[in-house]
Amino acid sequence: MTNDTVRAIEWQNNHLRLLDQRLLPHELTWLDLYNASDTADAIRDMVVRGAPAIGITAAYGIVMSAGHHYMSVGEQWRSSIQDDLEMLRNARPTAVNLFWAIDRMSALFDDIEGDPTSLLLNEAVSIHNDDIAANHNMGELGAALIKPGKGVLTHCNAGSLATGGYGTALGVIRTAWLQQRIDAVFADETRPWLQGARLTAWELGQDDVPAEIVVEGAAASLMASGRIGWVIVGSDRIAANGDVANKIGTCNLAIIARHYGVKFMVVAPVSTCDPDTPDGLAIPIETRDPQEVLTLGDQRIAAANASAWNPVFDVTPAELVDAIVTDKGVILKPDAERMAVLWS
Amino acid sequence: MTNDTVRAIEWQNNHLRLLDQRLLPHELTWLDLYNASDTADAIRDMVVRGAPAIGITAAYGIVMSAGHHYMSVGEQWRSSIQDDLEMLRNARPTAVNLFWAIDRMSALFDDIEGDPTSLLLNEAVSIHNDDIAANHNMGELGAALIKPGKGVLTHCNAGSLATGGYGTALGVIRTAWLQQRIDAVFADETRPWLQGARLTAWELGQDDVPAEIVVEGAAASLMASGRIGWVIVGSDRIAANGDVANKIGTCNLAIIARHYGVKFMVVAPVSTCDPDTPDGLAIPIETRDPQEVLTLGDQRIAAANASAWNPVFDVTPAELVDAIVTDKGVILKPDAERMAVLWS
Repeated sequence: MTNDTVRAIEWQNNHLRLLDQRLLPHELTWLDLYNASDTADAIRDMVVRGAPAIGITAAYGIVMSAGHHYMSVGEQWRSSIQDDLEMLRNARPTAVNLFWAIDRMSALFDDIEGDPTSLLLNEAVSIHNDDIAANHNMGELGAALIKPGKGVLTHCNAGSLATGGYGTALGVIRTAWLQQRIDAVFADETRPWLQGARLTAWELGQDDVPAEIVVEGAAASLMASGRIGWVIVGSDRIAANGDVANKIGTCNLAIIARHYGVKFMVVAPVSTCDPDTPDGLAIPIETRDPQEVLTLGDQRIAAANASAWNPVFDVTPAELVDAIVTDKGVILKPDAERMAVLWS
Repeated sequence: MTNDTVRAIEWQNNHLRLLDQRLLPHELTWLDLYNASDTADAIRDMVVRGAPAIGITAAYGIVMSAGHHYMSVGEQWRSSIQDDLEMLRNARPTAVNLFWAIDRMSALFDDIEGDPTSLLLNEAVSIHNDDIAANHNMGELGAALIKPGKGVLTHCNAGSLATGGYGTALGVIRTAWLQQRIDAVFADETRPWLQGARLTAWELGQDDVPAEIVVEGAAASLMASGRIGWVIVGSDRIAANGDVANKIGTCNLAIIARHYGVKFMVVAPVSTCDPDTPDGLAIPIETRDPQEVLTLGDQRIAAANASAWNPVFDVTPAELVDAIVTDKGVILKPDAERMAVLWS
């Protein structure tokens, strides 16, 4: 499709290649990863980010790890791989897709005979392709909710770069743009990591969807102006009651949207929805290095004596969400009962 | 006072010196200005910013302009100065203190005989000193509203740097800190110009008030945590009905504060309150160059093809404001009737 050209995760012969998202949009640099340790580093250091993309990356990491361990210890690979799985599991705490993908890959181990590589690679590719298909599916489901004639606001990057491809929130936006349901796309620049300014604006630009960047502070002005009908975001984990963890600043938008009567849509595959997390309070929120706030690239921006608090996700309570769009269907006004259909 | 050490505007013999706020906190560079044109440039280019500081700066600009015109055309200075007044008036549109100061200076013209310099300088110094006194007064009034035991969040820089000295919002925070009414100060970094990270953190650091920087996106998380009791901000213009124009992102905070039951305080001298502006809709909101969002210093941060919308103020409706603290007293739950006492 002409509006789906960006891919950031590639399996090549025997190894994983990742488009280095730390350097976008200024440099398009691919990193070649050959083992689980490099893969965990790439997740931790945000070479790759976005909940579904992290899950897919970990799956490929397990393929490489299993192959190496089989080469060195043969049938004992199932036990010797456990440290690698633990390392991958500890790379980042909030996105549940990471644990979901590791569990899905691990579930196959017992039934494998001989070299696990090809069977696990098949599974990783399935996870990857299923994610892209889910995004196209969610694109249709989400776009159908949008009454034509207004713009949308998105936060962070929930696009091709954050997923196997096409994107969750940006998948809906791509489809809605193609269907001429939306007349403008506003992208929060998304401090401190600038996923909006750096990644969302870039990938939508690649697919000829015009996007206008705004600082997070402009949300109330934008919504008060009447120019947007929906805020559309992705998620790193959705709890069983419909509470949504996503990039810091998401809950701000949900509160402001409700104030102005703007609708709030969360787009995420079922792999992001976690029946074992009862509510938002149970979601571990990652706090990262204050330097991410105090500096930008090599440039110190803050006063020399200043410190910063840098939580990188927040939790939006279910009651502020108008629709959760998943690949298993749309949940309007989510609560624990309505969410339960996802796991029935 | 030990907690009031920062000054950014100085009259020296025959000219104006401004601490260049574009370079803070990395460089402390003073610019020497000798005429109205340089003064207007300094306001427009944000060498000096903050509504009261802009007014004071313009007043000193008029002193220099009047002196020059008197030197060249004698008693005709009152007419030949008009272009300079217009230039100063057009430097920035939103902060009403600019027009207030120009009007206050101009009101003296008719009664001046001979060289206007010393009389106008007296008036400019009065405006400057009155502003510092007003800030100390508001510091007491605002601090008295704060029940001890929690922190506060401020936005942009409404401190010594934004005023004659001591600050409006930061004046209240300085006084409240001294009185041990607050146990933490959080400062929004305040994109795109980073007034919070660059200026507020720096000037509070100078006066040994510890401040922790947060990205704007962290507001909901911070308020949900219960750690702050008040959001405290300055203003660029307060309309007759109590609607408040201030740095973009202020209205976000007011909406989020109301959602969490956090109180919202605006601190501004009467010179910021404009009886001729009926409500927020009548306040001209400056939109600045998109490059302020797309770049940081010399560093391009956004995708090459990206554009940005960069309104630099927003309007917070009076009904979201719990208290407006002025040097003529505190107005709780402001509306047109309660605001009217300021001009009675």
